[in-house]
This record gives sequence, structure tokens and C-alpha cells, in this order.
Amino acid sequence: MNNFPLLLVDKEKCSRNIEKVAQKCKQLNLNLRPHFKTHQSLEIGELYRKYGVTSITVSSVAMAEFFANSQWDDILLAFPIYPQITDRVNALASKIRLGIIFSSLKNLLKSVELITAHVEVYIEVDTGYGRSGTSPANTREIAVMINLIEQHQNLTFRGFVTHAGQTYLAKSTNEILQINKKSMCALSGLKQFWKESHPNIIVSYGDTPSASLAQDFWAADELRAGNFVYYDVMQSQLGSCSPADVAVALIAPIVDIYKSRGEALLHAGAVHLSKEFINIEEDRRCFGLVCPYNAQTKKWGSPIPNAFIKSISQEHGILTFDPKDAEQFEIGDLLAILPIHSCLTANLMLQNTVFNS
Amino acid sequence: MNNFPLLLVDKEKCSRNIEKVAQKCKQLNLNLRPHFKTHQSLEIGELYRKYGVTSITVSSVAMAEFFANSQWDDILLAFPIYPQITDRVNALASKIRLGIIFSSLKNLLKSVELITAHVEVYIEVDTGYGRSGTSPANTREIAVMINLIEQHQNLTFRGFVTHAGQTYLAKSTNEILQINKKSMCALSGLKQFWKESHPNIIVSYGDTPSASLAQDFWAADELRAGNFVYYDVMQSQLGSCSPADVAVALIAPIVDIYKSRGEALLHAGAVHLSKEFINIEEDRRCFGLVCPYNAQTKKWGSPIPNAFIKSISQEHGILTFDPKDAEQFEIGDLLAILPIHSCLTANLMLQNTVFNS
Repeated sequence: MNNFPLLLVDKEKCSRNIEKVAQKCKQLNLNLRPHFKTHQSLEIGELYRKYGVTSITVSSVAMAEFFANSQWDDILLAFPIYPQITDRVNALASKIRLGIIFSSLKNLLKSVELITAHVEVYIEVDTGYGRSGTSPANTREIAVMINLIEQHQNLTFRGFVTHAGQTYLAKSTNEILQINKKSMCALSGLKQFWKESHPNIIVSYGDTPSASLAQDFWAADELRAGNFVYYDVMQSQLGSCSPADVAVALIAPIVDIYKSRGEALLHAGAVHLSKEFINIEEDRRCFGLVCPYNAQTKKWGSPIPNAFIKSISQEHGILTFDPKDAEQFEIGDLLAILPIHSCLTANLMLQNTVFNS
Repeated sequence: MNNFPLLLVDKEKCSRNIEKVAQKCKQLNLNLRPHFKTHQSLEIGELYRKYGVTSITVSSVAMAEFFANSQWDDILLAFPIYPQITDRVNALASKIRLGIIFSSLKNLLKSVELITAHVEVYIEVDTGYGRSGTSPANTREIAVMINLIEQHQNLTFRGFVTHAGQTYLAKSTNEILQINKKSMCALSGLKQFWKESHPNIIVSYGDTPSASLAQDFWAADELRAGNFVYYDVMQSQLGSCSPADVAVALIAPIVDIYKSRGEALLHAGAVHLSKEFINIEEDRRCFGLVCPYNAQTKKWGSPIPNAFIKSISQEHGILTFDPKDAEQFEIGDLLAILPIHSCLTANLMLQNTVFNS
């Protein structure tokens, strides 16, 4: 018997989600280098291979090692290098084709001498997210960085990466498209400028809202999004997907029911879902949408209207529901909870993830 | 060389934190049954043994199994029983002294016939938190529950448990003391009533704010708090401890520095710290306080004023600091981040936790 709560992955939905983005990349002549931090799963990796994917992105050296041990041999470590990880980076780079990023001249100077194996190097630029990366307009800093990279025989300058994560904060589809357009303009100028002296450089771009909604990535050569394989409530709220596209759900038992207050206790806490939330109505937090679950078919239905996880502690989740729906819920029944941010839920549930086929 | 970020535990601080609560329990004639969900660590468990602790609390059957495998033989599983875990509960109860809880009559009815090994049973009552448990004033429901428990030869009715988690939402020390007082009044009435027919029953009580601040637990026989061994920023904000008492810190490297915006990129994300936050100033979120760290002594200093983690994504943490302090920060340096909620951070960092002695 399974242990609950478990994370159930609907592989058909994953396939459809991958197919859509893979086709878009093919049409637009973009290399798809999906971010594997979302799923961290060999099984989902194999699904990607069916769509011709051979290059991947990860966010930690541990993840890079994990996938390198399973025949993934073209990996971009999309987190800036720092001195303490250079030993592991060198060890890994001697085995596979490894891409690394430097996020500024100072970041580069601190670690560049410590990189002794052959790596491909990208400069991270910031097109407005304000998290990390050099301004694409900072030609002088970028020139010095490229120059230093080229002085090291074992480093190959490959181009630029950016993550337009500000799309996650957008209030509308239109705003996401505007952010994408603005990023493309900035990247286009950058690429034009450096292509003259470095005709082979590429621009690697990627966030799930843009990957899902935008149709034009004229300055990019590669798409690096990852969340789209699972999607989640946040992406559905952003318009990147519909709730029916969400390919993972936490399958959690009903432990107790409090009809008078229209609430139920589920075994579904912060150590399963994470504490990520969205606000629904003014200041009510929602830690997950709740769907009926069919244990025979291993499928879940559409979110139950007005039912959501209103609060969570370490192991407890409190479901609020419309009192008129009380008869739908019974202690011991299983419900499917769509996570707010699937990357964090998947990370917490790595040891208890189940695939429906 | 260590892999970063890592969770560093200051064992001296843990000892002091345990000692304080253990002494209080001794003075007040309370059994200390600390909640081990906070640390989930055998090493911290051994520290507790030095203070005479032999009974513990956990929040999942997996945790109960883990500690039972390391000579902990008196464990309370403080999460209501549901049908899917009864097999594991029975297996465990045949090996150790196991306490379980039922949170309502309906909760009990659903699983009671499935419990086939000998267990001690507590009824969970709700003194105002509104999460789970029966009202202590609901004498009729409690009477039926006790009656059903006593009809089962393998079940021993032990008493009542409650978690006054509403103290976590208190705005002042005084409010915490008021909540504690109110809980004690409710529990006192409950105990008086049932003691006549069941002279050996106990009342098990516990939340870290009360355990730290209250001096009187007249209706309780047992204290079940757990967070106090580590404490965290949330507890320090509640007044349960001072920042100097916080016994865990995420040791994270500085990856890049953006002096002009007074920010730095740290390798410290949501998969390390969790997404728990507090609000400082109106609507600015804080995901952790930041302290200088001495790698030689493995000690950290006091929180740097105006420095905190202002945003996090999966692996990235953005530190904001007072621009006049910019010279304190250098790429590659390690900083110590005090977590907002140490239970969640410890759970995420179980595989990379280091003790300073």
C-alpha cells in the first residue's frame, strides 16, 4: 500500500505539456534545454528524450551530478559559479559537456582561476528581473568578461543567458508579452553587437510564462524553461496553462471533518506542499486547489469550486469548502491537491513521487 | 570540503535551550515529551537524553519509525490517526510504547476497528486554535469517545492532548500568556470532570511560545513543545527567545554583490530555507536574518542591522543590506542566515546538517 501523502504525476499531461513547448521550439528554430530543477526526476527526463531533448538545465551542482550519472551529457548549470563549488564543477566538466555562468565581472574574477577543466561559459544578463546578472547595456563590463574568458584556454565563451523571472509577477497575459518583448529587444541589441566579433554565440532564454504564452523569441537561440512540464496553480493564475494542464497533484487523505465550520483536516502540510501561496479574494491565502480523486483510474477531476487549502502547518492542511458540498467529503477519502508552485512541492516529495503509468 | 549551503547546529545553544525548558518542567512537575519534528535528528535526540528525556512526540508515522529504530521506545504520534496509516501504527505499536490521538468521534469511528496492537490513546481537544480536535466543552462527544476506547481491550485511554498553536499568531507576550491562561482554564475543567472516573488520565500540552514564556501550567501534566531546541526568527519576534538563542543557521556563500542597489546574491533559496517569511516594516518580506560567520570557530555573530533576505527563488536568495555596510560583504564569504521557521528549514536540510562540536 502506498504511503500518503504522495505526489502523483500524470504522465500523459506531462507529455502533452512537453510536446506543446517542443513543437514551438521546433517551429521557431530554438534549441530546447529544459530546466530539470522542476521535476529532478529520471523518469520525466526519459519522457523529454522522446521529444528529442538532449541538452538540459539544472540549478545546482548536485543536480548536475545526478543527471550526469544517468547519461545526460550536455548540462548547463544555471546558477552563477562561486569558489566553493569549483572542485565539483571541475570534476563534472571532465566527464560531460558542462556549461557554467558568470553573473558579473566580480563574480567571474573570484572563481575563474579555479576552473581547471574545460567548460562552456555564458554571461548572465539581467533584462529587468533584478535578481542576478549584468545589465545587457553594460558593454564595458561584458567586454572585460569576454576578454578574461578568452584568456583561459579551457573556457569557451558560448554567449548569454537570462531569466526574465519578472513574468511571474505579471498581472496579465499582456504584461507577460510586454516583458518578453522588452527582453527580446534588449537581447537583440546585445546579440547584434557581439555577433560581429563572435559569430557563434547564442542567447539562452527561459521562463515558463513566456515559453507558454509568447510566440516570438526573435533574439533567442535556446529556451530554458522548466516548470511547464508540471505547471501549477500559480501558472494557471498567470494564464500560462489551464488547471486541467497541471500534471502533478498531492494525493492526501481526509483525516477529520468539521462540518459546522466548513473545514476538513488533511494530511498535507508545509513539508509536502511548501508554504508557497497565492492570495484569493483580498487577503485569504490559498496553499493549493483541491480536486476529487479516483484511486482506481489514478486520475483527478477539476478543482472543486470554493474549496482550497486555507492554512498549513508542518503536517496539517486545513481545507475550507462550501458547506453545501460537505457530503462530498468523508474521512479516509483521498483528495488531489494542485500545488501552488510545483517545483517546490516536487522537491519536497522526491522520495514519494508516483507516476500514473 | 563541505557542500554549501549547509545547516549548522550550535550544540551549546541547543543544550542551553533544552536545559531551560527541562528545568521548568522539573520545577512544575511536568513530564517533558519534546516534539522531535523540529530537528528529526538522532544527535539532538542524544542531547535530550542527557537531560533525562525518555518520552518523545513526533508528527508522522515515518518519524516514529525512525526514532523507534534508535532506541526511543515511548513515542506519541501527535497527528490524528486515519485509515491508511493503521497498518504501520500496528506494526510499530507491537515494538514500542506508542501513543496515538483521535481528534473527534468521527475520526475515531473511522479507524478504531483497524487498530489491532496495544496503544495508548489520547483525545485531542481544541482550546481555541481552530485546527483540529474536539471542543473540551463537548462532554457528550468526549464521553462517547472514551466509552468506545474502553470497549477495545488493546486501547488504553490515557487522557487529552492539545496544541495551543494560536500563540504563534499572538501580537505580544501578554497575549501569549492570556492564551495560555485561557487554555489552562478550559483544560482544568476538562480534567476535573474526567478525573473522577479516570483518576490516572493526564493532560499533554505544548507550544513553544507558552513553554518559553508561561510560568504556570496548572492543568497540564506533560509539555510537548519542540521548536525551542532550535528557536528561530519567528520565535524571537514573539519574544520566546532572543536572536542569540537561535541554535541553527544556514551557512550560505555570497555569490555576487550589487553595491549600487545594496544587494547580494546568496546560494540560499526556498529549497534550503523554505518560503516562510515575516513582514518587517509594512509590506517588506523577510525570509531570514543575516549574521557574520566565522568558519574557524564555527560560530556566528549577532544579526547585521538592516540586513535580511528580501526574496528567494528555488536556489537564489537576495540579501538586502545598508549600502554603508557594503565593505563587509565579499564574494565567496560565508554568511549565517537565521531561519524564519527552523522546523521547515531543518526538514529541508536533513541531508546536509552539520554540528559545531
